[in-house]
Order: sequence, then structure tokens, then C-alpha cells
Amino acid sequence: ASSDATNIQTEIRRDGDEYVINGTKWWSSGALDPRCKLFIVMGKTNPESNRHTQQSQIIVEPDMPGVTIKRNLPVFGFDDAPHGHAEIEFKDVRVPVENVILGEGRGFEIAQGRLGPGRIHHCMRTIGVAERALEKMCERLLTREAFGKKISEHSVWEQRVAEARINIEMCRLLVLKAADMMDKVGNKIARTEIAMIKVAAPRMALKIIDDAIQAFGACGVTTDSGLARSYASMRTLRLADGPDEVHNRTIARLEYGKTGARMHAREAAE
Amino acid sequence: ASSDATNIQTEIRRDGDEYVINGTKWWSSGALDPRCKLFIVMGKTNPESNRHTQQSQIIVEPDMPGVTIKRNLPVFGFDDAPHGHAEIEFKDVRVPVENVILGEGRGFEIAQGRLGPGRIHHCMRTIGVAERALEKMCERLLTREAFGKKISEHSVWEQRVAEARINIEMCRLLVLKAADMMDKVGNKIARTEIAMIKVAAPRMALKIIDDAIQAFGACGVTTDSGLARSYASMRTLRLADGPDEVHNRTIARLEYGKTGARMHAREAAE
Amino acid sequence: ASSDATNIQTEIRRDGDEYVINGTKWWSSGALDPRCKLFIVMGKTNPESNRHTQQSQIIVEPDMPGVTIKRNLPVFGFDDAPHGHAEIEFKDVRVPVENVILGEGRGFEIAQGRLGPGRIHHCMRTIGVAERALEKMCERLLTREAFGKKISEHSVWEQRVAEARINIEMCRLLVLKAADMMDKVGNKIARTEIAMIKVAAPRMALKIIDDAIQAFGACGVTTDSGLARSYASMRTLRLADGPDEVHNRTIARLEYGKTGARMHAREAAE
Amino acid sequence: ASSDATNIQTEIRRDGDEYVINGTKWWSSGALDPRCKLFIVMGKTNPESNRHTQQSQIIVEPDMPGVTIKRNLPVFGFDDAPHGHAEIEFKDVRVPVENVILGEGRGFEIAQGRLGPGRIHHCMRTIGVAERALEKMCERLLTREAFGKKISEHSVWEQRVAEARINIEMCRLLVLKAADMMDKVGNKIARTEIAMIKVAAPRMALKIIDDAIQAFGACGVTTDSGLARSYASMRTLRLADGPDEVHNRTIARLEYGKTGARMHAREAAE
Ligand SMILES: Cc1cc2nc3c(=O)[nH]c(=O)nc-3n(C[C@H](O)[C@H](O)[C@H](O)COP(=O)(O)OP(=O)(O)OC[C@H]3O[C@@H](n4cnc5c(N)ncnc54)[C@H](O)[C@@H]3O)c2cc1C
Ligand SMILES: Cc1cc2nc3c(=O)[nH]c(=O)nc-3n(C[C@H](O)[C@H](O)[C@H](O)COP(=O)(O)OP(=O)(O)OC[C@H]3O[C@@H](n4cnc5c(N)ncnc54)[C@H](O)[C@@H]3O)c2cc1C
Ligand SMILES: Cc1cc2nc3c(=O)[nH]c(=O)nc-3n(C[C@H](O)[C@H](O)[C@H](O)COP(=O)(O)OP(=O)(O)OC[C@H]3O[C@@H](n4cnc5c(N)ncnc54)[C@H](O)[C@@H]3O)c2cc1C
Ligand SMILES: Cc1cc2nc3c(=O)[nH]c(=O)nc-3n(C[C@H](O)[C@H](O)[C@H](O)COP(=O)(O)OP(=O)(O)OC[C@H]3O[C@@H](n4cnc5c(N)ncnc54)[C@H](O)[C@@H]3O)c2cc1C
Repeated sequence: ASSDATNIQTEIRRDGDEYVINGTKWWSSGALDPRCKLFIVMGKTNPESNRHTQQSQIIVEPDMPGVTIKRNLPVFGFDDAPHGHAEIEFKDVRVPVENVILGEGRGFEIAQGRLGPGRIHHCMRTIGVAERALEKMCERLLTREAFGKKISEHSVWEQRVAEARINIEMCRLLVLKAADMMDKVGNKIARTEIAMIKVAAPRMALKIIDDAIQAFGACGVTTDSGLARSYASMRTLRLADGPDEVHNRTIARLEYGKTGARMHAREAAE
Repeated sequence: ASSDATNIQTEIRRDGDEYVINGTKWWSSGALDPRCKLFIVMGKTNPESNRHTQQSQIIVEPDMPGVTIKRNLPVFGFDDAPHGHAEIEFKDVRVPVENVILGEGRGFEIAQGRLGPGRIHHCMRTIGVAERALEKMCERLLTREAFGKKISEHSVWEQRVAEARINIEMCRLLVLKAADMMDKVGNKIARTEIAMIKVAAPRMALKIIDDAIQAFGACGVTTDSGLARSYASMRTLRLADGPDEVHNRTIARLEYGKTGARMHAREAAE
Repeated sequence: ASSDATNIQTEIRRDGDEYVINGTKWWSSGALDPRCKLFIVMGKTNPESNRHTQQSQIIVEPDMPGVTIKRNLPVFGFDDAPHGHAEIEFKDVRVPVENVILGEGRGFEIAQGRLGPGRIHHCMRTIGVAERALEKMCERLLTREAFGKKISEHSVWEQRVAEARINIEMCRLLVLKAADMMDKVGNKIARTEIAMIKVAAPRMALKIIDDAIQAFGACGVTTDSGLARSYASMRTLRLADGPDEVHNRTIARLEYGKTGARMHAREAAE
Repeated sequence: ASSDATNIQTEIRRDGDEYVINGTKWWSSGALDPRCKLFIVMGKTNPESNRHTQQSQIIVEPDMPGVTIKRNLPVFGFDDAPHGHAEIEFKDVRVPVENVILGEGRGFEIAQGRLGPGRIHHCMRTIGVAERALEKMCERLLTREAFGKKISEHSVWEQRVAEARINIEMCRLLVLKAADMMDKVGNKIARTEIAMIKVAAPRMALKIIDDAIQAFGACGVTTDSGLARSYASMRTLRLADGPDEVHNRTIARLEYGKTGARMHAREAAE
């Protein structure tokens, strides 16, 4: 919902055997898909509790009274149909208590458990999107001519194609490492690697898609090439599931922690 | 139509008192605007002539027989209505000979005369777009909070805001210089400066808009902020009216020319 | 002496008709030059005073008792002779009271007055250094061959040469604007422009010199080309006379100030 | 000796039981080390042969008549003692025929076999240099203050530290992959991966060292921190053992080859 999950405002108030929900949630991805039959809503049940136990997750059905889908939110100019991103208003929505997932105050905990897998899944797709953009770029460069030769023969493109290949390979290996760690030592220990790849992969893909757009000329910015659509979609990944800056903050703090420990050990040894 | 204007394929064949036009032109900007009452079409009247005198420009009316608007070309999902970019087919379109502008074979010459003013006009607008994005970014940073303080107080943003201001100022000065030269010494002599700013300005704006999108979070990529729309529009300027690489090629060749002259003078002096 | 001038530690204590100086100052540029006949030392005369009036500047002669030049500080291995950067120790150095410049507590004020002109002077030289690197780069590219053609014909170099020319021109214009403002409205009002160019010019030059080094191959990193020396010297300018981050901080704060005023005016108007 | 190994000019002419060597070779690394007891010289024995069999490698002893060490070549301002890079002149140096390695015309083949291992060894060291720079940077940021707080608390540094960690990890994985391939499938098949890491690793290290220099302020550019020395040394790796552009060219051509094959297969399938 925000860089800082503790910003969430939606209120989930207990009233007898029900919870009453009030709030607005924009960027509810998938909510517009006709196959979407339930919403998982996060909000504050225990606003007085400590930061990490104020929130709960609760299941809401789209046709419950008080639920209004206000609008679709386009990404750049794409509606991302049929998936879509909805702005949803919850006004005195009444939900039976048993719809709370796991129990009151466990919303943050659930979110934490889910985010690692969600993030790496995005990164895996990102590698694929980048590969596809590189393929398209090379095909274009080898088939289109300008100034009496194939565009690929204007050697600036050698540099860009090579950088693309290098960066895809490096990101792929980091994704594989993170996934392997998730399997072997768990999401918690793998969280630095997940944060790293979450920052690195979308940026890598964006650069390659941008170069591919350039190679395609005007065809790159319109729908024919698929590239502008990929660009828009990858651009959201520098924000969704945590903006770059927030992941970098986490990574840096771990690094500083290691430095502090090292300095301490050195001092102790002296 | 292409990086290399000599790529144009549309045929304009003389037949008695008429010209017969055959070809397809995509990216006809403004053609979809209801106020658009005539098209200026460029094509080859003299395919055997030398490179720069093969083409002519001719006036065509939208409702002449054989003219078909095939579709609108969106830019990153935006239809750019009411302006729009059309793909237009010309099939045996017959136009009276007097519709040729200036005379047969002068198409390239006309294009050359028009491009300088067109390009600088885009660059001027670009400065404005960048200023507006910087304004929006600063307002967002000063009003939104994350992790217990205003985003502006996370000091990475100081660096980005400052870089934005520096780059706007430098581009503005180069636009002013180019415009001043156009007034005083003419478009031909000013063509290097025009090429320079055509490369520098859109890139500068894109970086600032991208940072502003980041500052806005999810709001940045949707229509509410106006930023994604600006991004899409600025991105086309790295292609339209000549891709970056082609302008850079021109600038570099002039630079090499100066170097050659300098080396020659030095040798002569020895 | 530091990003934050209030960090200065050297003590200048009044003792009758004399001041007694204690402290160490590294990076005393020019102190090793045989023509250097006096040092201007800055230190705290009034440590209890407010931040900006604690310090004074005082004239010290190199051969006064207690003055020891400890060593030369090389820059990337260059000794910058005959100029040089010295580490100097002041140990109970006694200086007559009349050597204080302007009066006690005015050190910061003097520094402020001097820094603007010093900074722009560096930026002007920077433009020249960048021009010279671009000249050398073009000469090399036009005369050296690899893979059967001149290096200049590998078109990636067109892009780099053009970017170099564009960036030099933009920085030159910003230097000229800043200088013009200093003349017409004074250093104080021109301080944002001075800060801007102080950040932009060295970075621009470093990129061009780095590309020139690349064009020269191994010759670029050694003394024959002069480029490595230029690189080292320009690199210090991202630190000396205020690191980039500190100037950017100043620029950003002015920008935020304008934003605040604009938001306030808008609210007032509503 | 050059981007393009076929540029080599040194002549190795057969004369009875001896070869007579004439030429100058600068950048003979290690030649100045007192422990260096023999030189391996590459030159043309068969200038009429095809490109890859013109050259031979031959063993020369430093004190043979006609061998003159002309000078040391500093890197930036560092002499890299005791190792050093020498410019060596060979004037009618006579060497017994049995000093030719493997046989006439096999110089290129030997060089090819040696380059892969040499390159990856540099990349492995590069990872270490980058790690060390990151360690130093973090220690400095956590211990030095400016503007009332630790420099690490100015959050722009979080971004830089995190990027450093991400880029080291990605490069490390690519080095490991290349090394693993060399072991398992041989240097020839691993040559793309070696080329990739040869481009990626030095650039990664240079960025981190440059940030570390910035964190150290003036201390970063002088010898105390070791960072300027590391920078100079890493900068040569973008040239030595093949400039970036040449490796990128190789990588791109392989990519274009794959694209061509894919397009061909697709056409065949249709
Ligand atoms: C396409 C898309 C789909 C989405 N789908 C969903 C969904 O299904 N469900 C859901 O709950 N949410 C969804 N989101 C929302 C997403 O989780 C948020 O956009 C994201 O968490 C960022 O929050 P924000 O937009 O409020 O930005 P803000 O929290 O306002 O942050 C704005 C910017 O501030 C900066 N910033 C923040 N902290 C720091 C810091 N410490 N240092 C420096 N800079 C900082 C960053 O640059 C950040 O981008 C979606 C978003 C998008 C774009
Ligand atoms: C929004 C928009 C509006 C437009 N409106 C109009 C209009 O109203 N009328 C009109 O006639 N046209 C219009 N155009 C078309 C525009 O002029 C062309 O897109 C542009 O000239 C580039 O041509 P191309 O798309 O055919 O790209 P190509 O010519 O195929 O070039 C593709 C890429 O090749 C690369 N390339 C080319 N030459 C070199 C080189 N020498 N070295 C290295 N790389 C090179 C560049 O990266 C370039 O981007 C519009 C385009 C857009 C995007
Ligand atoms: C070649 C050379 C010649 C010099 N000559 C002289 C001279 O003649 N006389 C003289 O007095 N001094 C001289 N100096 C010293 C120079 O003024 C200082 O190096 C400079 O002010 C930086 O101070 P510092 O080195 O102590 O770095 P520090 O103050 O320790 O700063 C280190 C780094 O911290 C970071 N930082 C600081 N503040 C912030 C912030 N707010 N946000 C984010 N990051 C921040 C910056 O990246 C900075 O580079 C010279 C320096 C050099 C390199
Ligand atoms: C510290 C150091 C140690 C060395 N030690 C040794 C040693 O022990 N033994 C030894 O034999 N050699 C050694 N060398 C030499 C090294 O191998 C050469 O410097 C390197 O091969 C590049 O050749 P060059 O310097 O002649 O550059 P050039 O071949 O003149 O190339 C200059 C530049 O041209 C550009 N260029 C070339 N081809 C292309 C292309 N296709 N497309 C675009 N741009 C291109 C590149 O930017 C390149 O950097 C050393 C070099 C250094 C810096």
C-alpha cells in the first residue's frame, strides 16, 4: 500500500460477531478480473498495539454491501485488462469474524511471509521479459537498414547488445541464487538476496527495453512491438512490492551491521 | 519517416494534369484531429534523380478518393486525442499538378528548411515539461511521509532534485543559444546547436520525469499525476525528428572535421 | 578543510601580544612551492562564540618556530610539483596579533567571500581541460586503426564524441551565466549558479577524459598522453572546495524553499 | 599489444641457427622486477602467412646484446614497483632457434590459450578489490561526521552502499560461472562468459572505488586510503587484455549469430 506498511489507514472494527470495514484501497491488482471472487483486505484492528501487530487480513466478497469499485487505474496508458488495478471503497462493510485470516493482529506477519515469493516471481518474469526484448532488438537491428547498411553494423549497437547480454546473465544468476537460498535456508535468511534482485532486475530490464525501443524507432513506442507495454509494466516494479530505495535501505543497513561487527571484533582483538 | 530520409518509398507519378499517389504513411501526427483539412504528403516524383532531388511534397485532401485512414497509433497506450497519429493509405490518389509545393524535386529542400524550427520548438516545450515535473516532484517530497519523516528528508532526494535543477538550467541555456543563433545567423549555421539540444533536452526531461514518477510511487505511473503521459510523450522525442544517434553522428562528424583541419594546419605550420 | 567548515579544530589562542597556534592542517595546496612565502591559517580564536564567528584567519611565515612541513600528499600518485599539497604541523607557533586578517572571528566571513571566485575559476579551467581532452581524443580516433579501419569509424565513438561536445557546450554556458551574475548581481545571489557549475563541470570533464583515456588505450593511463594526470586533477574537484553532495544539498534546499513558497501562495489564493 | 593482435610489428627473422629480433615493446609488465629472468617476445616470423600463423613467441634473456630497457611506464602517477611496466627495445637481438616456443607461427595460438585464464584471474582479484573498497567505505561512513550526523545517516549513501553490494554479488556469480565452465567445458566454450566478466567486473569495481573515494574526501585521492591506487590499477583493466569495446564486439556477434539462426529456423518452419 505504501513504502512504509505502517502507513495503512483502513479501519477494521469489531462489532459483535462481525467486523466493520471502512477505507479506500487503490491499486488492488486483479480486482477487475471477472474471475476474481474474493478480496483480501488489510487494515487496522488494533491501532493501539505495537507497530507490527496492529493489522489484520480479512476476506471480503466483491458483492458485499458497501463495497464499491470506483475506477480502473491505468499504467501509463494501458488498462492491463482483464487483470486491471482497481480503486475500491469499503464503506461500513460488515464481514463475519471468521473471515479474519490466522487471527487478529497477524496481518503484517502474513504479508511478510508472502512478499519474498511474490518478489522473486516478479524477478523471474523480468528476466524473461528482458530476454524477449533483446531478441526483438537483435532481429530489428539485423533486418532494418539506415545510411546504407544494417543498423547492426553501426557499431554503437554492438556495445548495447553486449551490455544487455551481460546484464541479463548477471541478474539471472542472482535470481537463481536467491531462489536456491529460499529453498535451502528459507525466505527470512534469503531476504537480502531477494531485496538485491528486486532492485537489480527491473532496472536491467528497463534499460534493455529502452534500447530496444530505440532500435525499433517509432514502432517501439506504439503497440505493434509490445515494447512500450513491457516498459510500462517493468516500470511499476521499481515501485510495487517496495520501491528501490526501501530495498536499498535494507541492504545497506545489513552491510553497515556487518561493518560494525567487523570493527568491533578488530577493536576487541587489539 | 525514417532515420534516413532517403528511405521514403511513397510514389508520386505524373499522369497528364494530375499526380497519382501510392503508398502508406504511418505516424502522420495530427491527421486524426477533426480540424485537420489537408495533408502534406512527401514521396518520390523523380526516383532516377540524385538523392536530394528525388522527392516532392504535395497537398492531399483527406476526403479524396483512395485516401484511407487505417488506424490510430497509440504512444505507450495513450491515443494522444484529439491530435493522434494516423496510419494512412494512399491508393491511386489523383491530385491536380498545381498541388505540388514549390515544384517537383524540392521536397527534401522544404523538409530541411522546416526541421530546425520544428526541433527547437519541441526542445522549448521540453524545458517546460521538465520544470513542471520538478515542481510536482518537490511538492510530493515535501508533503508525503515515509519512515517517520518527509520523503524530502531522506537525503538521496537532495541529490536528485539538485541534479534536476542543474540539468534544466544547462539545457535551457543551450536552447536559448540555439534560438539566438537561428535569429542572428540562420538555421543552417545553427544546425549543430539544434542537433545538440535535440539530443540533450529530451534525455534530461526523461530523467527528471522518471525521478518524479519514483517520488510519486504508484501515483506516478497512472494518469492522476500526468507524469506517465509526459514520459511517453518525451520518449518519442528521442526518435521523432531524427533519432539521437543520427544527430550525434552529425555533431561528431563536424567535430572530426574541425580536428582534421587543425591537424592539417599544424602539419602545414611545421 | 572538511565538508562542514565548522569541523575545523586548529586552536589560535591569544597570549598577550601574540597568538599561539596549535594544530595540523593537511591539504595545504601550494605550500611546497619555493615561491610560497606565507601561509594563511584558519582556526578557532573564539570557540565559545556562535558557529560563524568562532574562527579567524591569521598570517604565518613558513620559517617561524614550531612550523613543520610533515610530508607531501600525492594525488593518484602525482606529486603536483612544484605546487604540491603539504601536511603542516603548527606546534606552539607564536604570531604577532597584527597578523590576524580583518579581525578576530571573521575567518568564516573571509572564506565565504573568497570561495565563489575560487570555485568559478576552477570551473573555467575545467572547461579548458575538457576541450583539450576532446581534441586529443578526436586526433587519436582519426589516426589510429583497429580491425581494418580508423577507430573513429567504429560508430560508438560518434556517440561519445557528440556527447562530449554537447556537455562541454552546456557547461560552458552555465559557467558564463554564473560569471555574468557574479559581475552584475554579486557572489551572494550567484551562489546557486556557482554551486551548480561546481557540481556539473568536473563530472563532465571526468567523463570526457575517461573516454579519451579509453580511446588512447594503454597510452591513456600513462604520462605520455597527459590524460591520467588531468583525470586525477579533475577528480579532486569533486571534493575540494566542497564535495558534490554538499553543493547539491544547497541547491535542493533552495528548490524546496521555492516549492514551499509556491504552495503557500497557492493556498493563500484559495 | 593492441586491441587488434594482428597489429604487432616486431620482426623475428631467421638467420641460420638464430633468430634476429627487431622492434620495440612498451607495456612489458613485470620486466622491471629484479626476479624477472626471461622475456617472452611475440613477433612476426612469417609475415606472408595467413593472419593467425604469422607470429611466433620466443624466449629472450634480459642481458642479451641489443636488449635495452628504455623506461618505466607509470600508471596514473604510480610506478607499480617492483613489478613495473617497461618499454623495451630489441635491436638485432640474436637468439638461438631452439628458443622458439612450440614452433614457428604458433604465437597467436599460444596467446589464445593463455588469455582466458589470465583474464579470469584478473576478474577474481577485481572482486576482492571491490569488496575491500566497500569495507573501507562503510567504515568511513560509520565513523566520520558532517552536518551533525554520521555520513552514513545522509541517506544517499544507503543507495550507494546497496548498489555496491548488489553489483559485487552479481559479478561474483558471473565469475564463478565462467570459472566453472572453464573447468567443465573448456576455455573455448567459456570464452563468451570470460568476455562478459572481463567487461563487467572492472567497471563494477571502478564505480565502487570511486564512491569510496568520495566517502573518504581528500583522503580518498591520496595514498593513505589505498583507494586511488586501486582505481588506477582497475582502470587499466578496461584496456589491458582487450578493451571493453573489443570484448563487447565479440559478445554481440555471438548474439547476432544466435538471432540469425533463430530467424532462419523460424522461416524454415513456415
Ligand atoms: C501496478 C501496481 C500494482 C499494485 N498492486 C497492488 C496490490 O495489488 N495490492 C497492494 O496492496 N498494493 C499494490 N500496489 C501498491 C504498491 O505496493 C505501492 O505503490 C508501493 O508500496 C509504494 O507505495 P506508494 O505508491 O504509496 O509510494 P510512497 O510510499 O508514497 O513512496 C513514494 C516514494 O518515496 C520514496 N521513498 C520512500 N521511502 C524512502 C526512503 N526511506 N528513502 C528514500 N526514498 C524513499 C521512494 O522513491 C518511493 O517510490 C501496486 C502498485 C502498482 C504500481
Ligand atoms: C510520436 C511520433 C510522431 C511522429 N509524427 C510524424 C509525422 O507527423 N510525420 C512524419 O513524417 N513522421 C512522423 N514520425 C516518424 C519519425 O520521423 C520517425 O519515427 C523517425 O524519423 C525515425 O524513423 P523510424 O521510426 O523509421 O526508425 P528507423 O529509421 O528504423 O531507425 C531505428 C533506429 O535505428 C538507429 N539508427 C539509425 N541510424 C543510425 C546510425 N547511423 N547509427 C546508429 N544507430 C542508428 C536509431 O537508434 C533509430 O532509432 C513520428 C514518430 C513518432 C514516434
Ligand atoms: C587536491 C586537494 C587540494 C586541497 N587543497 C586545500 C587547501 O589548499 N586548503 C584547504 O583548506 N583545504 C584543501 N583541501 C581540502 C578540501 O577542502 C576538503 O577535502 C573538502 O572540503 C572535503 O573535506 P574532507 O576531505 O574532510 O571530507 P569529509 O568532510 O570527511 O567528507 C567526506 C564525504 O562525505 C560526504 N558528505 C559530506 N556531507 C554530506 C551530506 N550532507 N550528504 C551526503 N554526503 C555528505 C561527501 O561525499 C564527502 O566527499 C584540498 C583537497 C584536495 C583533494
Ligand atoms: C597496465 C598495463 C599493462 C600491460 N601489460 C602488458 C603486457 O605485459 N604485455 C603486453 O603485451 N601488453 C600489455 N599491455 C598492453 C595491452 O594489451 C594493450 O594496451 C591493449 O591490448 C590495448 O591496446 P592499445 O593500448 O594499443 O590500444 P588500441 O588498440 O590503440 O585501442 C585503443 C582504443 O580503441 C578502441 N577500439 C578498438 N577497437 C574497437 C572497436 N572494434 N570498436 C570500438 N572501439 C574500438 C577501444 O576503446 C580501445 O581502448 C598492458 C597495458 C596496460 C594498460
